[in-house]
Amino acid sequence: MIKLIITGGTLDKRYNELNGELEFPQTHIPDMLKQARCTAEIECQTLMLKDSLKMTMADREAIKQACSISNTKQIIITHGTDTMVETAKYLANSQQDKTIVLVGAMIPYKIKHSDALFNLGCAVTAVQLLKAGVYITMNGKVFDWDKVNKDREAGVFKG
Amino acid sequence: MIKLIITGGTLDKRYNELNGELEFPQTHIPDMLKQARCTAEIECQTLMLKDSLKMTMADREAIKQACSISNTKQIIITHGTDTMVETAKYLANSQQDKTIVLVGAMIPYKIKHSDALFNLGCAVTAVQLLKAGVYITMNGKVFDWDKVNKDREAGVFKG
Amino acid sequence: MIKLIITGGTLDKRYNELNGELEFPQTHIPDMLKQARCTAEIECQTLMLKDSLKMTMADREAIKQACSISNTKQIIITHGTDTMVETAKYLANSQQDKTIVLVGAMIPYKIKHSDALFNLGCAVTAVQLLKAGVYITMNGKVFDWDKVNKDREAGVFKG
Amino acid sequence: MIKLIITGGTLDKRYNELNGELEFPQTHIPDMLKQARCTAEIECQTLMLKDSLKMTMADREAIKQACSISNTKQIIITHGTDTMVETAKYLANSQQDKTIVLVGAMIPYKIKHSDALFNLGCAVTAVQLLKAGVYITMNGKVFDWDKVNKDREAGVFKG
Repeated sequence: MIKLIITGGTLDKRYNELNGELEFPQTHIPDMLKQARCTAEIECQTLMLKDSLKMTMADREAIKQACSISNTKQIIITHGTDTMVETAKYLANSQQDKTIVLVGAMIPYKIKHSDALFNLGCAVTAVQLLKAGVYITMNGKVFDWDKVNKDREAGVFKG
Repeated sequence: MIKLIITGGTLDKRYNELNGELEFPQTHIPDMLKQARCTAEIECQTLMLKDSLKMTMADREAIKQACSISNTKQIIITHGTDTMVETAKYLANSQQDKTIVLVGAMIPYKIKHSDALFNLGCAVTAVQLLKAGVYITMNGKVFDWDKVNKDREAGVFKG
Repeated sequence: MIKLIITGGTLDKRYNELNGELEFPQTHIPDMLKQARCTAEIECQTLMLKDSLKMTMADREAIKQACSISNTKQIIITHGTDTMVETAKYLANSQQDKTIVLVGAMIPYKIKHSDALFNLGCAVTAVQLLKAGVYITMNGKVFDWDKVNKDREAGVFKG
Repeated sequence: MIKLIITGGTLDKRYNELNGELEFPQTHIPDMLKQARCTAEIECQTLMLKDSLKMTMADREAIKQACSISNTKQIIITHGTDTMVETAKYLANSQQDKTIVLVGAMIPYKIKHSDALFNLGCAVTAVQLLKAGVYITMNGKVFDWDKVNKDREAGVFKG
């Protein structure tokens, strides 16, 4: 059983045609898992729907708590890319005996040519194969939490 | 470095508007890797573009040879789902010291709501994390070659 | 009020992932009108869901009857492209005092890069602006029923 | 021959994955006409790429001039929806002997479930069928320039 904790980020943004803004009306993760024809047992929990630039230490603590109380060993966290590394560090410092994989997207699922579905496939696979620890799966790579940074100019994660 | 051997299958089928048939004008894998924003080093080779129901033993032997001569230890093979398990068995019997992951799709990449991009993410991740052996990644799961079958009525792979 | 008579054709075909065939499980026209944010009053009627190559004279007679008994003057008919011109002729010979626009698509709505939504926009607009008669809207053009043919090699309608 | 004057608006917005903003790197109209399989003769001119809320009187004058110097009688103008009615009025007051159709979209072409392609189909058809005057095609309807308003709360044009 995999626990999937949803926190928002670009992946889940949707265009609001009434005001022209990208917003978070609701998560698209269940739709994505359906499109993926995923039969792995995944329990989704929407913890928050936030741009990761607006994520506070209280939000990170809430994510850590959600991981702690989870009774599964395999946890995926969807997260905005801008502060994904910070949250990974925060979780790593709490030294949990679980496999935690953070994942997001550069282009929202609801926009054409999105990387979201590919990235989710990476996370779902990585969480089942990796030993306990905190990881990030982006750009088709698996990164240890302490060996990765987002290159914002290039829009890619680098080890 | 990952070697990605393309053999066709549903994943790569495209609608031909002139005759109304689903055909294989060319592979979409490079487009998919671009959409995925994948920076993992992947070398693609189009070995054939075939419906897996039409795959012969000579085709399987060609796939095996392509794996054998590859000088990378990580190999992904895109393949039609109907005989993916047969090809996996054929490759396993040749006992190669490489990690070989077979992957396909139930819905072509070029059709809306395709599972292809998700599945490719699973394969790209699995091939980097698994020890030598032959595997299938479908439906968000990683299967050993000898513990999986396609349930054709349900359209899912089961362990 | 516009009457929209649905008869099938490429526009409404959908990939069946269990058998790999393009089929007609149901029409997508209501979904298309929703995506179009269309507020024109349109009443849809699914008369049949057929490949137009399989359309019989009895089918054409049924379409003619559906036009005859319609109490609106504006009628759109979705139709496969291969025999659209034949059906247009059949309807024209029955000399109805209504504006009848036939429309279809070269690529199904459910396949990426489909022309279906554009074509539907053409038909919805043409039926509101044209005087009584039988027309075909394809490739961004409006054709009189007796001045159009499908060039099957090029996949376009020509006047 | 149809002249298509591009001015921007939601229709042409694209997500910039590096800064998370919706921007105008370039127009998508040629891609849309290709997807539409449109064979009507259309000459595109990118006059500007602007959010219509930022459109100035100088911009409207530039649009009017572009219409005036056009030697075709059929003109389509892509335009943001928020001030589309204002621009239509501005053009109507200059009393040109041409058919001018303004069109836009509530959801960008590059976002899933966009109305852009449908709306373009409406405009391409309307401009070929209407007598001289200034019109707006949105929501599957054809409006005279002086009998339409955008209901911003509902996100629809009403007569």
